[in-house]
Amino acid sequence: VPTTTIGVDVGGTKILVRVVDTTRPDQPLAEHRMETPARIADVVGAIAAGVSEVERRLGDPDGSMAVGVGLPALVRPDGVLAFATHLADAAGFDAGAALASAIGRPVAVDNDANCAALAESVVGAGVGASDMVLVTLGTGIGGAIIAGGHLLRGAHGFAGEIGHVEVVHDGRPCPCGRAGCWERYASGNGLGITAREAASAGLLPSVVARVGSVASVRGEDVVALAAEGAPDALAVLDELGRWVAVGLADLVNVLDPAIVVLGGGVVDAGDLLLEPVRAHFARMAIGAGHRAPPPIHVAHLGSSAGAIGAALMAAGRG
Amino acid sequence: VPTTTIGVDVGGTKILVRVVDTTRPDQPLAEHRMETPARIADVVGAIAAGVSEVERRLGDPDGSMAVGVGLPALVRPDGVLAFATHLADAAGFDAGAALASAIGRPVAVDNDANCAALAESVVGAGVGASDMVLVTLGTGIGGAIIAGGHLLRGAHGFAGEIGHVEVVHDGRPCPCGRAGCWERYASGNGLGITAREAASAGLLPSVVARVGSVASVRGEDVVALAAEGAPDALAVLDELGRWVAVGLADLVNVLDPAIVVLGGGVVDAGDLLLEPVRAHFARMAIGAGHRAPPPIHVAHLGSSAGAIGAALMAAGRG
Repeated sequence: VPTTTIGVDVGGTKILVRVVDTTRPDQPLAEHRMETPARIADVVGAIAAGVSEVERRLGDPDGSMAVGVGLPALVRPDGVLAFATHLADAAGFDAGAALASAIGRPVAVDNDANCAALAESVVGAGVGASDMVLVTLGTGIGGAIIAGGHLLRGAHGFAGEIGHVEVVHDGRPCPCGRAGCWERYASGNGLGITAREAASAGLLPSVVARVGSVASVRGEDVVALAAEGAPDALAVLDELGRWVAVGLADLVNVLDPAIVVLGGGVVDAGDLLLEPVRAHFARMAIGAGHRAPPPIHVAHLGSSAGAIGAALMAAGRG
Repeated sequence: VPTTTIGVDVGGTKILVRVVDTTRPDQPLAEHRMETPARIADVVGAIAAGVSEVERRLGDPDGSMAVGVGLPALVRPDGVLAFATHLADAAGFDAGAALASAIGRPVAVDNDANCAALAESVVGAGVGASDMVLVTLGTGIGGAIIAGGHLLRGAHGFAGEIGHVEVVHDGRPCPCGRAGCWERYASGNGLGITAREAASAGLLPSVVARVGSVASVRGEDVVALAAEGAPDALAVLDELGRWVAVGLADLVNVLDPAIVVLGGGVVDAGDLLLEPVRAHFARMAIGAGHRAPPPIHVAHLGSSAGAIGAALMAAGRG
């Protein structure tokens, strides 16, 4: 089993290449960052160049280190991409084969959220929990599931698409084609929509006064005013917390995790969001009289989680 | 590994004791049925008596066969019951220890839906699928999950409480304390509520004419009139099918099973229900352009599934 491996995380704007000693994965041996190209074939080329760069720096030009790559895509077990919102030409692309060819050795390929969940469970917020749900509240909502100590990938590698659980019947339309999906309410985008709805209804005067118009209200403005103690902004974050809790309660009912880990940019709001999430969640968890609801923790590894998890997968920890 | 084991399924009204050759588990070697006592301690006594009875019939009075028991309860990994809707004094009861003491050997204890899912996956509708969701549409909704070839039990043994996923925000109140839970819409009880709502609105004249009043409309009446081709009754079953599909789509987004298996009395409506379920589900599954949605099959083992699964657990197949 290799202990020094290369993990690559492909994000919407940046690619992170990180060399990891998997016995101490929080301490990078080398890191390299690049812009993310728009086309998947160019992403493969960029990854190969980034891998060569870190190998050169570490004096390993022959490439003895195993490589794992996390991609923002639905990744089938055979390494073929089924779909990726932000990568052109991704559907049907054999990422596993293309990366192996470009780098010159086998490459472990998985969904980026799966990589992040593996990292949080091995070295982050979920250490010691064999059943964990990772929920990433960003522009949308991503997620991944550890069940019985293993990543839950599903039959086609598509498990964990939790952002499209329906929380409002005939609710806000979603680009996925359905309506009322969780990520239309509990993500950064969802916060923005909720905030502008509140502003239109005259319920967010402090934020409208600050930014000048209802249409220009953004989620960040709500967080900023809430941090200053504005009651109307705090009320909108309480509503966001309720939406987050609704989906978490559903996931807990289905999966019974020992811990829920929240990541993503929305969580940067800190206790302004986490306190309402925890308060609403405590009221919603089924069987509350018969068991303690699982604790809700913030992810520990931040934007490094995907690369660390990809490195762990390269070491056979997936 | 034992090949002949005893499986016990404790239902709301009946207990089924079944001796199973686990290499051919669909062929019972012996069966014995009893009424289900109201109190958990009496259930233990009844199970022990039933086990002795089948042992006596098979000429094994010394009790060499391993025993597994499926209970309609939240069962913790240590065999202690956390909660059971229909069994008095169940919460906190150490069912594993009590059964071992009464029967004189270790007993495998699990949730009844977990037992049924194991049986369907090993010898029923889910054979060959390492990722399967079992959804039981009865008075309420039960369920269990096979992920990566194993039962998904969760951290406390409570995974699969899928009936309490929220499908309508601020929807029909549920005895669990939340509102809008899936089982308030997509179960037998849910069908009854939907039917009486439709009847109240004047939308179910054929059924009201048959049964005499809005208040006496039951789900079975809707199925009977739908079978006769009454368009108003068919419309209510189409709505039921849509509610079933909403929750299935959520489960598929989270779990990505290879197959969905539907059991429970509501499925006795046959194609009158399954056709609308499949039609609505096909429109709701995310990524429909990138993958085939999983097939929806009816459970094969009927009311024997729980006992067969308990016998398989006794043989170490859980």
